[in-house]
Amino acid sequence: MVTVIQCADKVGLVAAIAGVFAKENINIISMREHVDAANNRFFMRVVAEEYTKADMLQSALEQVLPPGAEIKVNPLPEKKAIILVTKEYHCLSDILIRNHFKTLGAKVQCVIGNHPTLQNICERFNVPFQLVSHENKSREIFETELLQTIRTFETDYLVLAKFMRILSSEFIDRFPVRIVNIHHSFLPAFVGANPYRKAFDRGVKLIGATAHFVTNELDEGPIIAQQIIPVDHSFTAAGMMKAGKEIETAVLAKALQLVFDDRVFVHNNKTVVFD
Amino acid sequence: MVTVIQCADKVGLVAAIAGVFAKENINIISMREHVDAANNRFFMRVVAEEYTKADMLQSALEQVLPPGAEIKVNPLPEKKAIILVTKEYHCLSDILIRNHFKTLGAKVQCVIGNHPTLQNICERFNVPFQLVSHENKSREIFETELLQTIRTFETDYLVLAKFMRILSSEFIDRFPVRIVNIHHSFLPAFVGANPYRKAFDRGVKLIGATAHFVTNELDEGPIIAQQIIPVDHSFTAAGMMKAGKEIETAVLAKALQLVFDDRVFVHNNKTVVFD
Amino acid sequence: MVTVIQCADKVGLVAAIAGVFAKENINIISMREHVDAANNRFFMRVVAEEYTKADMLQSALEQVLPPGAEIKVNPLPEKKAIILVTKEYHCLSDILIRNHFKTLGAKVQCVIGNHPTLQNICERFNVPFQLVSHENKSREIFETELLQTIRTFETDYLVLAKFMRILSSEFIDRFPVRIVNIHHSFLPAFVGANPYRKAFDRGVKLIGATAHFVTNELDEGPIIAQQIIPVDHSFTAAGMMKAGKEIETAVLAKALQLVFDDRVFVHNNKTVVFD
Amino acid sequence: MVTVIQCADKVGLVAAIAGVFAKENINIISMREHVDAANNRFFMRVVAEEYTKADMLQSALEQVLPPGAEIKVNPLPEKKAIILVTKEYHCLSDILIRNHFKTLGAKVQCVIGNHPTLQNICERFNVPFQLVSHENKSREIFETELLQTIRTFETDYLVLAKFMRILSSEFIDRFPVRIVNIHHSFLPAFVGANPYRKAFDRGVKLIGATAHFVTNELDEGPIIAQQIIPVDHSFTAAGMMKAGKEIETAVLAKALQLVFDDRVFVHNNKTVVFD
Repeated sequence: MVTVIQCADKVGLVAAIAGVFAKENINIISMREHVDAANNRFFMRVVAEEYTKADMLQSALEQVLPPGAEIKVNPLPEKKAIILVTKEYHCLSDILIRNHFKTLGAKVQCVIGNHPTLQNICERFNVPFQLVSHENKSREIFETELLQTIRTFETDYLVLAKFMRILSSEFIDRFPVRIVNIHHSFLPAFVGANPYRKAFDRGVKLIGATAHFVTNELDEGPIIAQQIIPVDHSFTAAGMMKAGKEIETAVLAKALQLVFDDRVFVHNNKTVVFD
Repeated sequence: MVTVIQCADKVGLVAAIAGVFAKENINIISMREHVDAANNRFFMRVVAEEYTKADMLQSALEQVLPPGAEIKVNPLPEKKAIILVTKEYHCLSDILIRNHFKTLGAKVQCVIGNHPTLQNICERFNVPFQLVSHENKSREIFETELLQTIRTFETDYLVLAKFMRILSSEFIDRFPVRIVNIHHSFLPAFVGANPYRKAFDRGVKLIGATAHFVTNELDEGPIIAQQIIPVDHSFTAAGMMKAGKEIETAVLAKALQLVFDDRVFVHNNKTVVFD
Repeated sequence: MVTVIQCADKVGLVAAIAGVFAKENINIISMREHVDAANNRFFMRVVAEEYTKADMLQSALEQVLPPGAEIKVNPLPEKKAIILVTKEYHCLSDILIRNHFKTLGAKVQCVIGNHPTLQNICERFNVPFQLVSHENKSREIFETELLQTIRTFETDYLVLAKFMRILSSEFIDRFPVRIVNIHHSFLPAFVGANPYRKAFDRGVKLIGATAHFVTNELDEGPIIAQQIIPVDHSFTAAGMMKAGKEIETAVLAKALQLVFDDRVFVHNNKTVVFD
Repeated sequence: MVTVIQCADKVGLVAAIAGVFAKENINIISMREHVDAANNRFFMRVVAEEYTKADMLQSALEQVLPPGAEIKVNPLPEKKAIILVTKEYHCLSDILIRNHFKTLGAKVQCVIGNHPTLQNICERFNVPFQLVSHENKSREIFETELLQTIRTFETDYLVLAKFMRILSSEFIDRFPVRIVNIHHSFLPAFVGANPYRKAFDRGVKLIGATAHFVTNELDEGPIIAQQIIPVDHSFTAAGMMKAGKEIETAVLAKALQLVFDDRVFVHNNKTVVFD
């Protein structure tokens, strides 16, 4: 059973928290703790034996922790996610495979595409696909339609799996720390469009991919995971893009695993990841 | 201030330990904890604020922990090491540089070589070099001479920085979990002599290096750190050896940093590394 | 257009080969050449402009190269493969996805499983699945049945995508340099069964996966590609196996890409890979 | 013996070049060739048997290659370099060690520092150290003094091994494709000053280092090599800087090895690296 805690730091927090577990006679299997001293912020993830009285543990922890502490005992044991896509199949296919074999860590409720390209692959896995085209629409109307579709589900996370539309602040603010995006560059290098073209033009020797939570600032949200692969002069921009798809897939999978496994904390636009 | 603890596991250990820190009003900056459930073993490393009364903290911890617990508050703040070498310069030079600029994490007391090759580089750094030749001697006599030299120092660690002699069980038993070796392969592949030749013959696409504590079983001690680099058909066995020297240097440096920073625990021939 | 050549080495081969291309007025885009001096063996891969008269080029090359030279102009532009599996889905699913979106570099003709577990995922992609059970059969009969199924296709490659049966020499000899296997360890460490268990017991800090051509010697065939990921004390054997699946998938995909792109040469149980 | 060639591309170049080697009866051991089709540029590196008549080979190649071809047969077999430093020891020390043991690929003629900090380590290796302070001087005067020192040597390369002054276009133009710099970030992320602080503030999960040739545009020259290491929330900005020093050292060493081994070509602000 996982418990995650984030709160203002003070002396004695670990003792207080561990004391609650000890009092309930729950053995702690592993504990990760981090204090961001500059921001006086305390983060903890506890893996303990299974325990049936989660509510009681939650209450007991609330009593020993500072006001405003974020405490989640056994957070969302069955997570649900909606995947947003455009035309590229690689990230979505990987998610669909893991979802199908129940190793994703969340259940895919539906896939929303602004193009119909990926409808067929979703159908092969009996995952609902909703086409919400952006064409001939203002962003406001497009996002209203997205929201209508999203609202038909009670969802926990939105995953932008190569969704090539920029979302408004208004939209994003509805899902704080609940939208995960895969960006096709080693951020903060090559923000914005066409990162592989820019990487090719610059002659870099490594290309990367970045999974991050989406915030109002484009490509500026808290980074969850990054990976790189080597490239050289023999790669065209198209070849870099092809090679990049492999790590886009891998790094999004890794980030989702971390998020769905309650290993990622966010504070002040940065993540604490207990991997 | 670092505190490391290893003991039999039981419910309430984290609370007990953290309670001691809280009672002394010491803020915990970071805590890493691991339970090896199969072996019922508890490992913890605590980084806390500086605290002058280490002895008092040590006593307080002893009172709350099981009998036989290994507790080290502020362990060996000024570590000392003796380096054993043969002819290859790369690992030793890296250690000498870090020692010279005081970033090694330990003080090099002397270098012992069974060949005179590396005397000159030691002298350039004003580090004593002792020649203890193995030629025309039984291993017993050779090791007796090594011990005589080692005993003139009160040392904490022996570092085998490409020391190409096999040490006896009797010798090794005198320094339990205190001898660090760099092995020129990705153990357990290519144990024994000539690993680069074997790697070349096998046509591997990655070569590696392994830093480990030395135990009686040759190349079988607990692994501290490992790294690899890619190779291909264009590498000769000699080219692999040359490339391997780069990671031998890097992985030994990394392992020493971990050991000297009290991040490595050993139990049942395996390490717990809180990096 | 790709041309691959392997033959005994001698002075003037590059000039002779390039001379043929120049005479036909074909521009060479990139050329990789390697001489294995110890074995007096010459390897070359040429990427040139498209050229319609492949037969003429092949003849012209044969005339300037030593007897016994292996020359393939535009080798198998449409490769075909049969995938053999047991129960694990990760490698097969990745291959099915790439096959479906036509980025595998070969066409999957059918999947043969010795368990029915993966039939369903094949059907979702309209790829034929053949169950060939090994139960209550001698290996001889099992392999005869495998061959009967394989022979209904004209296939170029067999891919063992976590096929957990050992094949006989007689079987393997029928497909020289045409069977690709993914082995779940960083060969030659942990040959044989249960490599993750062995890796866990040894306490390694990296685990790996190896794609290789299958030869008579179990796990001893020429290595095509290898990759590793870091692990630590927090991984159980099961956790290592789970993490390992990610690189098994990645390294088999990489190896198939290299093989299907005619970048892999084999000689004396080693590969030359022009990646 | 190495031969490097760069020229405008046309059909038949490989045949023409290889023909020259064949006519002189020189066996080619390995050949790397790349055509930058977009820029119609041809690059080749040939490793051949030793050959005493380099001048004759050079002339013969000139006759078959287009006007303006850059041809170097056995280029600078004994390269010489001057190292420029400020206060940080890690890159310089690594270079001094390799220079001392003759594995650098070039001879260090002298070290120029704008601070005296690193004089002592140079003296330990009997490498001349020249203090050229920038204090209380215009950049023009500072660079004039640098040039005076540099001119007392006939040097091939300048290596900026953590030299923390920005050089003028006038200075740089005197050493085209002859100044190698190590930049403490994964360019083009975090150009300019304090990259580790910026990386920390951005919360990246990988930090990098970049070795590049210096051109007029700050941090914009052709990239030779890049490497990264993972970091996480537990790293302070200072910790990132410390970790970064390890890869700065490694990536500069790698880049120098490539440059001194004549494996790096430059065209249009990008490199072709035949590694």
